[in-house]
Amino acid sequence: MSFIDKLTEAIDHNNSLLCIGLDPVLDKLPETYRQTKQPLLEFSRYIIDQTSEYVMAYKPNSAFFEAYGAPGIEQLKQTCDYIKDRYPDVLIILDAKRGDIGTSNEGYISYAFDYLGADAITLHPYLGKESIQPFLDISEKGSIILCRTSNPGAGELQDLPVEQVPLYQSIAKLVASSWNVNKNCMLVVGATFPEELSQVRQIVGDLPILVPGIGAQGGDLTATLQAGLADDKKGLVITVSRSVLYAENPGDEARKLRDAINAFRVTI
Amino acid sequence: MSFIDKLTEAIDHNNSLLCIGLDPVLDKLPETYRQTKQPLLEFSRYIIDQTSEYVMAYKPNSAFFEAYGAPGIEQLKQTCDYIKDRYPDVLIILDAKRGDIGTSNEGYISYAFDYLGADAITLHPYLGKESIQPFLDISEKGSIILCRTSNPGAGELQDLPVEQVPLYQSIAKLVASSWNVNKNCMLVVGATFPEELSQVRQIVGDLPILVPGIGAQGGDLTATLQAGLADDKKGLVITVSRSVLYAENPGDEARKLRDAINAFRVTI
Repeated sequence: MSFIDKLTEAIDHNNSLLCIGLDPVLDKLPETYRQTKQPLLEFSRYIIDQTSEYVMAYKPNSAFFEAYGAPGIEQLKQTCDYIKDRYPDVLIILDAKRGDIGTSNEGYISYAFDYLGADAITLHPYLGKESIQPFLDISEKGSIILCRTSNPGAGELQDLPVEQVPLYQSIAKLVASSWNVNKNCMLVVGATFPEELSQVRQIVGDLPILVPGIGAQGGDLTATLQAGLADDKKGLVITVSRSVLYAENPGDEARKLRDAINAFRVTI
Repeated sequence: MSFIDKLTEAIDHNNSLLCIGLDPVLDKLPETYRQTKQPLLEFSRYIIDQTSEYVMAYKPNSAFFEAYGAPGIEQLKQTCDYIKDRYPDVLIILDAKRGDIGTSNEGYISYAFDYLGADAITLHPYLGKESIQPFLDISEKGSIILCRTSNPGAGELQDLPVEQVPLYQSIAKLVASSWNVNKNCMLVVGATFPEELSQVRQIVGDLPILVPGIGAQGGDLTATLQAGLADDKKGLVITVSRSVLYAENPGDEARKLRDAINAFRVTI
């Protein structure tokens, strides 16, 4: 099945555009998890069990597991296995922000897709299409390209003018017109910049966009949906991490978010 | 000790600008290593023992170890430990091409510097200085920023004109003028593009540049040295992988390369 079809199925399954980022930081975990042998895994399982009805994807960020070396990677693998075994209708987006020359990218492909079994991976565009061709060639796996990121300093490079057009818009254009041959590309555009999200939406038609930055980073949900929904009221994957992970009741928080997103989708 | 001083010491120790990339691919390893329990580690140890007199750094590429999951990462860690124990005068450059928002970068810092004990890491510039500030703040560890990469399609984005100047030159300027406050920045410029290397050298003064692309990728050594050496006949780290790793005698190959580089350094 092509990635775009998998994405649509995942959205429809729980009627949700919500994705939860699994970014576990040891010091922030509740005491009961910190004392277990595999705290990142145990905590991730807890979040997954609480929220699986309300999401279309989980987005583990590799950095938070790599921080603990090989044992961290082992916990990431078991987290991915757990999602695939228990909740096969929910996608796994590996947030790894990789991007190397072609032969090295083969290694990252083995890591993300063969070893972890992820359905998609986030990628840096800087080395160009030729370098990430090995990802683009796998039509059933998503290539999610960084476009306009959510961090405060994103504009330093991403807004540089390329023939009067900001660089991030050039990248959006390239991805939509030339990289997305296999209908397996998405873009990352941060919720902290709704105006830029709106620009990207106009450039890329119905290409799906992964949107981090709601919650702890300060992005506004309504402004994001207004700026970013595609004509079919889909086309967005809204990803949140801290505001759900460390909520008193992560399931309630996820349900509220999903429902708030859906309420907006039916009113416009 | 600041990173720039560590770099100079490492160059002077073996009088070498040569760095060897540790990119072990299981299928390419000699039969004797493929049959061991930790083939990536055993092969890397062999290469290190054969070449340690002739190099100033090893550059393990994380992708080639991640390809084998947690056991691969464990072998990468043991490879780094081996270098630090046996050859403490040789630097470890982790080629990981990371780059995320600040909080995630903290995870990559734990991975590269705390867990693996690397001296430097390669980084994507796309999220801007603000995002990689956590790396830049560590003055004894090198931040090696991708500028003009060695792959054939590097120009698709990196040559986009920003006010008449290619993007990679804008990045070189930013790094030299604003990111390098702690004297711990380097740039990556591929040997496959000597003209571009020459442009970058003119922009950045004596900022050190990591140069992949000699050997299997087709870059020319003399053209690279001509274009890239700084005024003090240093300022370059010439990194090779496949042409040494799979040579009949890796030590001979490394010695020849170091000596060819040094012959050029004394004649100009």
